[in-house]
Amino acid sequence: MTNTLNFENWVCPLPLQNHPTIIMGHGGGGKLSAELVEHLFLPAFKNETLENLGDSAVLDLTSKIQNPKSKIQNLPRLSFSTDSFVIRPLFFPGGNIGDLAINGTVNDIAMSGAQPLYLSAGFILEEGLSLEMLGTIAESMGQAARQAGVTLVTGDTKVVDKGHGDGVYINTSGLGLIPEGVNIAPHRACPGDVVIVNGDIGVHGVAIMSVREGLEFETTIETDSAPLNGLIAAMLDVTPDIHVLRDPTRGGVASALNEIAQASKVGIALDEKQMPVSGPVRAACEFLGLDPFYVANEGKLIAIVPAAVAEPLLERMQQHPHGTKATVVGRVTDQHPGLVVAKTGLGGTRVVDMQVGEQLPRIC
Amino acid sequence: MTNTLNFENWVCPLPLQNHPTIIMGHGGGGKLSAELVEHLFLPAFKNETLENLGDSAVLDLTSKIQNPKSKIQNLPRLSFSTDSFVIRPLFFPGGNIGDLAINGTVNDIAMSGAQPLYLSAGFILEEGLSLEMLGTIAESMGQAARQAGVTLVTGDTKVVDKGHGDGVYINTSGLGLIPEGVNIAPHRACPGDVVIVNGDIGVHGVAIMSVREGLEFETTIETDSAPLNGLIAAMLDVTPDIHVLRDPTRGGVASALNEIAQASKVGIALDEKQMPVSGPVRAACEFLGLDPFYVANEGKLIAIVPAAVAEPLLERMQQHPHGTKATVVGRVTDQHPGLVVAKTGLGGTRVVDMQVGEQLPRIC
Repeated sequence: MTNTLNFENWVCPLPLQNHPTIIMGHGGGGKLSAELVEHLFLPAFKNETLENLGDSAVLDLTSKIQNPKSKIQNLPRLSFSTDSFVIRPLFFPGGNIGDLAINGTVNDIAMSGAQPLYLSAGFILEEGLSLEMLGTIAESMGQAARQAGVTLVTGDTKVVDKGHGDGVYINTSGLGLIPEGVNIAPHRACPGDVVIVNGDIGVHGVAIMSVREGLEFETTIETDSAPLNGLIAAMLDVTPDIHVLRDPTRGGVASALNEIAQASKVGIALDEKQMPVSGPVRAACEFLGLDPFYVANEGKLIAIVPAAVAEPLLERMQQHPHGTKATVVGRVTDQHPGLVVAKTGLGGTRVVDMQVGEQLPRIC
Repeated sequence: MTNTLNFENWVCPLPLQNHPTIIMGHGGGGKLSAELVEHLFLPAFKNETLENLGDSAVLDLTSKIQNPKSKIQNLPRLSFSTDSFVIRPLFFPGGNIGDLAINGTVNDIAMSGAQPLYLSAGFILEEGLSLEMLGTIAESMGQAARQAGVTLVTGDTKVVDKGHGDGVYINTSGLGLIPEGVNIAPHRACPGDVVIVNGDIGVHGVAIMSVREGLEFETTIETDSAPLNGLIAAMLDVTPDIHVLRDPTRGGVASALNEIAQASKVGIALDEKQMPVSGPVRAACEFLGLDPFYVANEGKLIAIVPAAVAEPLLERMQQHPHGTKATVVGRVTDQHPGLVVAKTGLGGTRVVDMQVGEQLPRIC
């Protein structure tokens, strides 16, 4: 590993709260992001669906169909989600903003148990961007969409002046259908449930960091960005009784688990030794003083499931290309509701708090 | 009218085609935008729904429901649309980026005849933006959503570094249900049909221009941004047999009509004298050398309908607050397919071509 840290454009990872202006941490997926949503957006947009704060909104259209002749009942619920991608740099080991934008929204939809079907793409392009680069990004989006089995059905393009916009920002929004009998939501974790992750954590964040901060590692760490809807469909084949699924992107596994603990009013007890972290990611995190629990993922999921189904689920996950390293990392408990704790390698216990700002901005 | 034109940040309205990089005109909703979609995005994303190129995608979920027990038939079609808003300045006479972002997507959905139901909001915020300003924008979004009868159900916030992003960019995507028997699409204009607009054109574009270019007019021209779903529901009450509806935003009435003429392989003959243009907008356009046919609208619609229903439709539209000045402005003809022509005030005829770049960038 060679050390060429670049402190230009350095952003404070733990900014002060109660700031009168937007700071990078408001986009970090941690406490500051949550405060912005709770104190600014929710009061303005007030409605029950938004307040559920899942990775996607779950919509029941049955009541919205006004034609009494059609007598439609038990209409499948829709999952609807949106995500904007402002990642720097646009190209990174193993991917680019295009496939990331597809996988990100596919996964947000899939976390409700839905099969993602249709995506929109909204581009904000910077004047001066090369058409060749945009073409490469669009090709990657098309490929990622075909791989995930979704169709890009509607789009929009805006152009902003040179010097603004960082080349390309992409918003993807999407729709999926939730199978009957599936009820996955952040508030459904129960004491006794088991916490599963589908593989090595922190890979995407470290892959971005390695190119952003001018670090060169002996092995190139590639993003693990991948569509997880196939894996989730396989899991739902084993049992529809999955309580929570979560995409631990910004804020990492730590922030996602804290949100679940708070929404479900339960405690979560992790075992650090069980958390899968690859050698290169561990080395990079040690070098940079980062905690892999807080590093962003894309292509990873957290599943919280009844203990009784954990064994067959793990078996099925491990047969899937995106779940070969699936493993149990903790348990849900009625102790310390709202808190996530981890048994450390030394046998002690530490509180795993929600991220306040962010370790590395603009990771997705 | 006082003249204080500001040429700083001036952008060429008619840039060269076949440019190897993105230029402002690629976001203008005219020929360059269409070329980008046709030659870059469509080949990458290739699918039939996208190729229809309406304001929204029309989705039939019936075939996607895999549960044979539910036996759901004749499921209402969904309308799905996305739009990003990068308008400068963020606040302008009569509105701000927040209500514009709601009305824009509500209208894109409504143009399929759908009743808009749910919206997503994706924010790209610039570091340093005041929370007070963001709060005002969010409040406007909430109010506009309530006025249009839609619910903001899911969202996302990203933050980009100071100096990028122009304060706030907003993407809204949305969903609506299309009533049975309604079949509105850009390719459905037929010779003999009548072209209707719901009121004065060019208002939104001139309202933005007046604050952007430092012009001061004797009367402040306020944006006419408004949700049109109520007006369209009233029109569909008169008859479901509306052939085309279109939201003439970027590129103005001229570009929207050209898209329809090309999609339907028909000619469109306008009568300039019939096109409603308010005195202040006409004066501002004359002063600036602009053609109101190309100025952006938000809160205006073009309806192409069978001649037989034009009279009762107009009557109903004129009773609605957003249609008081509804009027017939032209006819669809089998002459000159793909072309839009206008009878001028002097009795001659001119071809109304599609806009190439844009008259004024970042209008929505």
